[in-house]
Amino acid sequence: MTAVWPRADELGLLTDLYELNMAQAYHLDHRRGEAVFSLFYRVLPGQRNFAVACGQEHAARLISELRFPEEQVRRLAPLGFRDEFLDWLAGFRFSGEVRALPEGSLVFPQEPLLELRAPVAEGQLLESLLMNYVNLETLLASKAARVVLAAGDAPVLDFGMRRMHGLEAAWRSVRAYRVAGIQATSNVLGGLTFDLPLRGTMAHSYIQSFDDETEAFRRYARDYPGTTLLIDTYDALAATDKVIGLVRDEGLDVGALRIDSGDLAALARAVRDKLDGAGLSRIRVVVSGGLDEWKVADLVAGGAPIDGFGVGTEMGSVADAPSLDFAYKLTEYDGRPRLKASPGKPVYPGAKQVWRQYDGEGRLVGDEITAADEERHGEPLLRTVVADGAPVVPPPDPDAARERLRRELASLPAALRGTARADAPYPVSFSDALEDLRKRTLDRLP
Amino acid sequence: MTAVWPRADELGLLTDLYELNMAQAYHLDHRRGEAVFSLFYRVLPGQRNFAVACGQEHAARLISELRFPEEQVRRLAPLGFRDEFLDWLAGFRFSGEVRALPEGSLVFPQEPLLELRAPVAEGQLLESLLMNYVNLETLLASKAARVVLAAGDAPVLDFGMRRMHGLEAAWRSVRAYRVAGIQATSNVLGGLTFDLPLRGTMAHSYIQSFDDETEAFRRYARDYPGTTLLIDTYDALAATDKVIGLVRDEGLDVGALRIDSGDLAALARAVRDKLDGAGLSRIRVVVSGGLDEWKVADLVAGGAPIDGFGVGTEMGSVADAPSLDFAYKLTEYDGRPRLKASPGKPVYPGAKQVWRQYDGEGRLVGDEITAADEERHGEPLLRTVVADGAPVVPPPDPDAARERLRRELASLPAALRGTARADAPYPVSFSDALEDLRKRTLDRLP
Repeated sequence: MTAVWPRADELGLLTDLYELNMAQAYHLDHRRGEAVFSLFYRVLPGQRNFAVACGQEHAARLISELRFPEEQVRRLAPLGFRDEFLDWLAGFRFSGEVRALPEGSLVFPQEPLLELRAPVAEGQLLESLLMNYVNLETLLASKAARVVLAAGDAPVLDFGMRRMHGLEAAWRSVRAYRVAGIQATSNVLGGLTFDLPLRGTMAHSYIQSFDDETEAFRRYARDYPGTTLLIDTYDALAATDKVIGLVRDEGLDVGALRIDSGDLAALARAVRDKLDGAGLSRIRVVVSGGLDEWKVADLVAGGAPIDGFGVGTEMGSVADAPSLDFAYKLTEYDGRPRLKASPGKPVYPGAKQVWRQYDGEGRLVGDEITAADEERHGEPLLRTVVADGAPVVPPPDPDAARERLRRELASLPAALRGTARADAPYPVSFSDALEDLRKRTLDRLP
Repeated sequence: MTAVWPRADELGLLTDLYELNMAQAYHLDHRRGEAVFSLFYRVLPGQRNFAVACGQEHAARLISELRFPEEQVRRLAPLGFRDEFLDWLAGFRFSGEVRALPEGSLVFPQEPLLELRAPVAEGQLLESLLMNYVNLETLLASKAARVVLAAGDAPVLDFGMRRMHGLEAAWRSVRAYRVAGIQATSNVLGGLTFDLPLRGTMAHSYIQSFDDETEAFRRYARDYPGTTLLIDTYDALAATDKVIGLVRDEGLDVGALRIDSGDLAALARAVRDKLDGAGLSRIRVVVSGGLDEWKVADLVAGGAPIDGFGVGTEMGSVADAPSLDFAYKLTEYDGRPRLKASPGKPVYPGAKQVWRQYDGEGRLVGDEITAADEERHGEPLLRTVVADGAPVVPPPDPDAARERLRRELASLPAALRGTARADAPYPVSFSDALEDLRKRTLDRLP
C-alpha cells in the first residue's frame, strides 16, 4: 500500500536533525540542568487582531506519550549518533512539566501558549513536534474565528478539504473549526472523528452529467428530500425558475439553493426575490466560491439575503497569513534566566503567567504577563496539564474550548472583532518584575 | 495514544460528503455511464511563471489501492446512506483508467495534471482525495523550484518542518523538495523516508544554555567535528572572532558558520572577510531566517559570499500562494463532451493530450493541448499510469522527476525562470479540434 502517513511508531523521528544533535550534545556532556522553554508568537500578521490558541493541550498529551521504539532508533545509527545516546533515546519518556493555555483562548503576541519545564535535552528534543503541531490548529482556528465573526448570525460551513495542505491538515482542521465556531463541515472523516455536523450537496459535475438540468434537480431532490441544489452550472436565475416549477408542480422537497460563482450579492437577492415571489420563503439561499472573512463581511454589511456561507480555499489554506512566527525559546536553564539578543524582537526570560483581566461588566480590558510566581487579580491562563511526564487533566474538551472562545470574543472590544486591524491593539503588558529580570539578564549577556 | 493521523483504513472516508451523496445518486439511478474527469488549474498566482506537477502519479496509485472496509462503511449508515449503496462501497475497487503527467513536469494553466476515465460514480467519489493529495506536493514543489532557481549554484536546505501545515505536510514535503532540487533537509523522518540528505546544526537555545558562548562553540564542535556553528545569538562578528580563535588556537574543526538574523548580505560579507583574513577560507558561510526566493535572489544578485541558504517558513507555508485554483471537472459523460458555463473561466470538454514542443536547440517553445486522439510533433505528456484499475507503470522515481524538472527548467526561456512574472507567459494553445468541440458543446448547453 502506498504510504499516506508515517507510521505511528515513526512519530519521534519526525523532527529536525538539530534537535537530535543538541540532545545528544547535552547528553554526552552531562548537561542535565532543568530548562524552561516557552512557545509564543511575536507579531500578528496582516489585519489580524488576535489568534486563537488551539492544539497545545493535545500536543502536551502527545509528548507525554512519545516513545522511540528500538526499531526506529536503529535508523539513526547510520547518521553517526553514538550508542550511548541511542540507548537514552530508546528509553525516552518525557519526565517534565507542561503548562498551557486552555484551548480556545485568545492569545496575543508574546503570550506563551505553552511552557515546558524539563531536563534540557528533553525540552529541546520536543521542539519541532510541538511547534508543528500547535502551528496547524492555531492557524486554522484563528482564521476560522474571523470568518465566523464576519458571518454574524449566519452559519459558516467548511468546504476546504481539497485545498488544505495534505490529508492530515484536512482531517485535523475539523477539530480546530469546531473550536472556532464553524457550524458544519463537508469533511466526512473529520466530522465523524471530531463530532461536527456534516453537510454536503452536489457539484457542478452532477448537473453536467445530465443533458437536462431540470432532470438533474428532479432526480437529486427525489434521492435527497430537503437537499441543497447547486444552481449556477449554466444560469442561476433560469435554474431558480426550474426549481420553482418543480416544487410547485411536482411537490419536490428542496431545502436550499446554492450559488457558487458570479456576483453573489446580486444573485442571492434575485434568487431570494424569485423564491419569495413564488411563496417559497422556506427555501434558503446559501453561497460559496472564493469567500473569505472580508467578502463575507461585505455580503453581510450589504444586507444580502444569505442563509449560510460555504468557505473553502481561503480559510483552509489560511491565505492571508499561512504562518505565524512561532518561537520556542529557552528562557531559563539550570535556575538562571536566559535570553537571546534580538534587536527589535524583545524576549523575556523565565517562566511566566498570563493574567486576563475583565472590568466590572465582564469586558476584557487587557492581559498582564508576569513571572510565574507573581500573583494578580484576573484569570491566570497557563495551567499545568502535564506533571512528572503524565497528564494531570482530562483531554481537552472541544465544546468547552468553543464556549471559552465564544465568551472571550464576546467580551472583546468591538473593533478587535472586525476584519480590519484595529487602531489600538489589545493591551498586553509585562510586569515590572519581568522587565527588571529582562534588564538584569541582558546586562549579563556575553 | 492520542491520534496523530487517521488510521489507514479510514482513508476512503476522508472525502467531502457530497462525493458520497453524488456517488449514491448515480448508483441508485443506475447512471453507470463512463465519465472523464480532468484535474487542472486555471490561473498562475502572483509572480509565478510555472507550476511543477508533483504527487499525481502517487495519487493515481493510491486510488488504485483504495478500499472501504466494512467497519468504516458502517460509520456512514447513521448519515442516511442506503444499504444498497453501502454494499457497493464495501466492494469498491477502482476499475478505470488514469493518465497523468510525469512527476517533475512543468505544468501550465489549463493543462491536465491527471485525467481519469471511469464509471461516473467512481470518478466522482475520488475527487476530494485526488485534489487534496496533488495540491500539497504541487504547491510545495512549485515554490521550492523557484527558491532553487533563485539560489543559482548555492545549495538550498529545507528548514521548514515547524511551519508547515501539520506533520504529514512536513513529512511529504521532503518528497516534493527532492523533486524540486532542494539539496538537503533538516527533517529527519522525511529525509530517511524519501532519501534526501539530512542537515542540521544547532539552535540559539544551545548557545544560551551556556554562560559563555565560546564554551558552547568548543563543546559542540568537539562533539560534531566539521559542524556548522550558529553565530548570531548575541553578536555575529564577535562570535566569528571567537570561532577563529578556537580554530587557530585549539585546532577546532568547524565546517561552516550560520547567520540567522540581521542584514544577511552585510554580515555574510563581514564574516567572510574575517574568515579569509584569518586564512580560514575553507569555513563556509550559510544564512537563514525569513528567506524566500526574492530575498535569496537579492543576496545572489548582490554578490553576497554565501555558500548555502536555509529556507523554512516562506517555502514551507508557500507564503505567496498557499493554494492553487485546482479544478476537477467532468469533461465527458456517456460518450458526450461536457462543460460548465463559466464566464471568464474557459473550460474545454473531452479527454486531452498535452504536447510539449522544443526547437532545434532543445529550447522549450510552447505546449499545445489537443483532444486525446490527435497527433502532434513534440512530447506527449499524459501517459497511462493506471489501467483497468491497476498500475501499469512502476512507482514514480523521484530522481527521474528531479532530472526531468531540471531539464525542463533549463530549456525554459530565462524570463520564465526568474522570480518576477514574465511579460509574456509560456505559450499554451488549444488545438482547432478542441476549440471546435468547445463551441459545439457550448451551443448545446441548456
